[in-house]
Amino acid sequence: MKHTKGLHLSAEECNASLSAVGDALYVIGGKWKLRIIIALREGGTKRFNELQRTIAGISARVLSNELKQLELNGFIKRNVYDRMPVVVEYELTDYSDTLEDVLQSLRAWGMMHRETLRRRMKAEAAAPGHMKMPADL
Amino acid sequence: MKHTKGLHLSAEECNASLSAVGDALYVIGGKWKLRIIIALREGGTKRFNELQRTIAGISARVLSNELKQLELNGFIKRNVYDRMPVVVEYELTDYSDTLEDVLQSLRAWGMMHRETLRRRMKAEAAAPGHMKMPADL
Repeated sequence: MKHTKGLHLSAEECNASLSAVGDALYVIGGKWKLRIIIALREGGTKRFNELQRTIAGISARVLSNELKQLELNGFIKRNVYDRMPVVVEYELTDYSDTLEDVLQSLRAWGMMHRETLRRRMKAEAAAPGHMKMPADL
Repeated sequence: MKHTKGLHLSAEECNASLSAVGDALYVIGGKWKLRIIIALREGGTKRFNELQRTIAGISARVLSNELKQLELNGFIKRNVYDRMPVVVEYELTDYSDTLEDVLQSLRAWGMMHRETLRRRMKAEAAAPGHMKMPADL
């Protein structure tokens, strides 16, 4: 009945860990922020409309909000070029590079999880009625 | 004006990357899921009320919902012990161990970011009026 997974953390370590992950999720969590950052990694700078086209399903209002928050947290820079018409472009700051490990681990995990679901569905098709959980595979 | 950060991804690679991160955030994103998983790493198994006490600010309704989704995705197991009164405990599955790298990178980034904010505030206190962004530090 008692079963400890992974490292055994003291209450203090656990709370420090909880709050560091909480900090990270507060700033980069949610549905869109990391996607916007990934989209800006390709091509370097993008205008608002280009960004909206790249990120399927985001509304202009939500994109505008998320960009403001990302700018406030120092991940992106908003450049205004005084032309006719005025050009506004968004680019990543050097600080956004600090997210490389987080992005890499999420990407690797997302691919692994998709493969797991694929195998799970295959197993389900072979033996209907027994819905396999990832833990069984 | 053109400035590419990090690796330059092709459109195809960028989209694969976007969708893998999207998959990951879909399953483990949001405010609470990773916090619940971290809380269960300490002590191994926990009852509902213990969990709610550990995770500051979560309501019973939200916790119950999140636990159901985590169970559906194979991260936790719900054990019912037929005693008087009935005991319900939650524990992590082996599959939840696959999140180790994600947690580790979020934890490291969260600590780094907190330190950055601390330095930013110190710089701001020393030279008020010039609000430093993490990118400046």
